[in-house]
Amino acid sequence: MTQTGSNVPAAIWRRQAADILSAWGLSADHAATTAGILTEADLMGIDSHGIAMLALYERQLQEGGANPRPDIRIVHDHAAVALIDADGGFGQVPSAMAAEMAGDRAEKFGIAAVAIRNSNHYGAAGIYARRLAERGLIGLSTSSVWRSAIVPTGGLEPRLGTNPIAFAAPCAGQRPFLLDMATSTAAIGKLKLAERADRPIPAGWALDRQGAPLLDPAKALRDTLLVPLGGHKRYGLATMVEILSSTLSGAAMTPLREALAGYHDVGHFVMAIDPALIRGSREEFAAEMSRMVDALRATPARNRSVPVMVAGDPEYRCEDERRALGIALPHKLERQLRDICDRAGLVFRMAEEAVPG
Amino acid sequence: MTQTGSNVPAAIWRRQAADILSAWGLSADHAATTAGILTEADLMGIDSHGIAMLALYERQLQEGGANPRPDIRIVHDHAAVALIDADGGFGQVPSAMAAEMAGDRAEKFGIAAVAIRNSNHYGAAGIYARRLAERGLIGLSTSSVWRSAIVPTGGLEPRLGTNPIAFAAPCAGQRPFLLDMATSTAAIGKLKLAERADRPIPAGWALDRQGAPLLDPAKALRDTLLVPLGGHKRYGLATMVEILSSTLSGAAMTPLREALAGYHDVGHFVMAIDPALIRGSREEFAAEMSRMVDALRATPARNRSVPVMVAGDPEYRCEDERRALGIALPHKLERQLRDICDRAGLVFRMAEEAVPG
Repeated sequence: MTQTGSNVPAAIWRRQAADILSAWGLSADHAATTAGILTEADLMGIDSHGIAMLALYERQLQEGGANPRPDIRIVHDHAAVALIDADGGFGQVPSAMAAEMAGDRAEKFGIAAVAIRNSNHYGAAGIYARRLAERGLIGLSTSSVWRSAIVPTGGLEPRLGTNPIAFAAPCAGQRPFLLDMATSTAAIGKLKLAERADRPIPAGWALDRQGAPLLDPAKALRDTLLVPLGGHKRYGLATMVEILSSTLSGAAMTPLREALAGYHDVGHFVMAIDPALIRGSREEFAAEMSRMVDALRATPARNRSVPVMVAGDPEYRCEDERRALGIALPHKLERQLRDICDRAGLVFRMAEEAVPG
Repeated sequence: MTQTGSNVPAAIWRRQAADILSAWGLSADHAATTAGILTEADLMGIDSHGIAMLALYERQLQEGGANPRPDIRIVHDHAAVALIDADGGFGQVPSAMAAEMAGDRAEKFGIAAVAIRNSNHYGAAGIYARRLAERGLIGLSTSSVWRSAIVPTGGLEPRLGTNPIAFAAPCAGQRPFLLDMATSTAAIGKLKLAERADRPIPAGWALDRQGAPLLDPAKALRDTLLVPLGGHKRYGLATMVEILSSTLSGAAMTPLREALAGYHDVGHFVMAIDPALIRGSREEFAAEMSRMVDALRATPARNRSVPVMVAGDPEYRCEDERRALGIALPHKLERQLRDICDRAGLVFRMAEEAVPG
């Protein structure tokens, strides 16, 4: 995961992000939470959902697609469920709040869910699920996406976002099982990696305007005609995420959003289950989880030097490395952040406080 | 969906299945419920999960892997969640019970889930989700599988079943959105179709023992080294289903099952959400669902004579046809059922009451 360029300690990384968000008008509290969640993605190697998102966030604020000072309100609240209106702000603050609420209620009712509407990009889906797993609960998090990218099977135009689904569960003596995936065959981040490496993408990731396989990652990123995960009826999985995230919360399905509706109106869904109230014991569940993921890792490997991994393994390995050595700051990202700082009238602090990579 | 051979009215089909199950020792009540759910799968064209399952069920009963007279008990019960011990019986009766319980509790708490352990094959996952959607709720159903089939990415042996996930949601003025999918790239049923048609399967569905793509469907069915949906980290989706279905309920992960444990100990998970308690109104949700699926179907199609479909569309079309014309009885299935009837000392009633196909 190391790259050329300098390494920046996570604390500086986070402070830089918080400075920028504050300069854009977010409250200190919202800026800190949002910056923390972006940095967590960078630590885990989910670079596409970390501080690099600030380029999009800046544009959304300028264009009026996002609200820097949202008045986040609970609009429905009943027993094990609630609905939050995020008032057009970025998704991290209401989603962190939803994860906490869902966790508290799951401990009371056994299962709970909080839906969020009128929100925006919420960073890496896995972070909210992980928080719940770190409390000993099962966590699930889904989101719709402001921009359509997935082409329904047999179609020629995108109708659904890359609609992520994340799921986490605690494991005794080790870090949680942590799945975080797009419901397109390849996440946008994979296309960007291919573009940066100037490598064609495999057939089956993206389509051209006639519906034929497209191998050029730059064109795929421009047209975003992405193939759903598993093709065939499995664009149903992207639709399931759309239903949980936007239809259930009352957020807008992107193709049906009114042009003049203001904020992007993204929707999220966060669910928590307390295994203690189903199985009788959290410890028993976490112990069984550990046996299960260990059995998966022990699968005889095709290549003996590449052991089978479980969802979350690569991200935790990256996180350990980056917590110890700092986060690599690629030159292109550094330039972007310097420009953002210039426009916001801020000092770019990452370069000064970076350590040699 | 029509085939050569005779067509059998659904009522006869169901009665035939119930006769067989009763002859095997199931109570009249359990036989009727199980037969109804098997027939529903046949009506929907999910032939691999319909009456053809009786061949497996017979073997499981003979081998002591299933209990014909289970004492189904609720072992934990708390607010929005419960755990059912299915006592080794087939999965249909406890799962139908779980769907009803989850629905009732979702109407009270907003969301609810029932886990089931010590169960067996439960037929088509979509049926339980559909029942909840027909009540105006969102339904989700998952199951582990008695036999491992999915090879974790980078591995050489199967460690997870084809672990299905089903999800349904009501749509105003039309039938529910209904997704029912395996978390392998191709369901076992697809392999059987290819075998019957003597057609090679695409690379990427199954592996040989060295981990290379396997194109022979007969070998793929024998060795069951199936590629997880979407490859890569997406075998995490099969693992998610395993966690919800077996780890959460305390059922056995197949590779960890003790050889002498008796029944197969399959696990299921059924969840329900009442959109009224999140969004404020069921009608509003169902209306929005209809707008959404209509927008998906209206996607410009690659082939103008093949409109884009939504999950459930092909199954409902088949169901309409089969309810009207009866269910086609292929010769091979007829032979299997005649043999089963012979062994159970039953008259084979489908032939006499069939109508010309």
